[in-house]
Amino acid sequence: MTDKASKHQQRQQKLKEKVDSKVAQAQIERGVLLVLTGNGKGKTTAGFGNVLRAVGHGQSAAVVQFIKGMWDCGERNVLQNLGVQFEVMATGFTWETQNKEKDIAAAEKAWAQAEIWLQDPSIQLVLLDELTYMLSYHYLDVDRVLEVLAKRPEHQHVIITGRQAHRRLVEMADTVSDVQPTKHAFEAGIKAQKGFDY
Amino acid sequence: MTDKASKHQQRQQKLKEKVDSKVAQAQIERGVLLVLTGNGKGKTTAGFGNVLRAVGHGQSAAVVQFIKGMWDCGERNVLQNLGVQFEVMATGFTWETQNKEKDIAAAEKAWAQAEIWLQDPSIQLVLLDELTYMLSYHYLDVDRVLEVLAKRPEHQHVIITGRQAHRRLVEMADTVSDVQPTKHAFEAGIKAQKGFDY
Repeated sequence: MTDKASKHQQRQQKLKEKVDSKVAQAQIERGVLLVLTGNGKGKTTAGFGNVLRAVGHGQSAAVVQFIKGMWDCGERNVLQNLGVQFEVMATGFTWETQNKEKDIAAAEKAWAQAEIWLQDPSIQLVLLDELTYMLSYHYLDVDRVLEVLAKRPEHQHVIITGRQAHRRLVEMADTVSDVQPTKHAFEAGIKAQKGFDY
Repeated sequence: MTDKASKHQQRQQKLKEKVDSKVAQAQIERGVLLVLTGNGKGKTTAGFGNVLRAVGHGQSAAVVQFIKGMWDCGERNVLQNLGVQFEVMATGFTWETQNKEKDIAAAEKAWAQAEIWLQDPSIQLVLLDELTYMLSYHYLDVDRVLEVLAKRPEHQHVIITGRQAHRRLVEMADTVSDVQPTKHAFEAGIKAQKGFDY
């Protein structure tokens, strides 16, 4: 082995030991609350990608979409066929409805279904897509949401997506990823494209 | 309508106008190069979530996994059944192989397949999962990678994931999301769990 190759091997061995030791220390097994927030692209796709991962391992998952786009949802088409249960809030983006009472009623209805799934230990993963807006617009009560999350089955994972996650949601979460937009094609005049952006 | 409801409607109307005007300005339609980087959880799941979205709209996609885990891959199980093509680099995490020559040969082989897909206009989305490490470890040449990306079919989207994306990759990309780990369950002693973390 050359000297350079040997140094590479030593470096990689050290890295392996560091990783192995961290892995050995992490032994708790329980449901994780993951919050995907920030203004960058990738929060909802990461949520659905995690649902896909669960389903790929034969686990059961349920999805509540708190802001329904105008469009057909590519992810929903596939995942429903794979047995994932869906609840879609019956309203468009909130700045298109301009009717607060109607929005609140729709949010309450979607949350009622979320509560049922958040008490069902047979569901291993619940994705609450775009839930953060329901809290920042005060459509749902944060105390109620946090209480239901805290009382959920021990091994149930929950993923919450959306910009500006509530401070108390971040505090309660086990893992929080802040997706920052270093840049976005939209700002360069590229339109949202079907199959990629929605 | 109450005064408060009317104010809410006015605010939402302004927001709608702002969004509509931005949407009207973004009219270019072409393949987007998306880089998902940073140390937080959600990069690979966002990549696979985007593949799921494309497939859900009847589009074709291909995936190259540049770092293969030890484990069974939940996403791959499902997506292969849905017609997504896969190329998996024939080695484990690089800090577990400790053999640079073998790693480089494996990277070259995976990249050769990537090059074929990056010249095929019938493939609408190519996911190059964990490609960034191949550049930071100098397993692949950055000039060659950027040239192939630049020459790809006009309407083909490409997603590249992994930590510490190369500066020139970030420069070339249309959209870059930097996924920051505000916190991670692993640090609190929670182990990586099948169906959620892998």
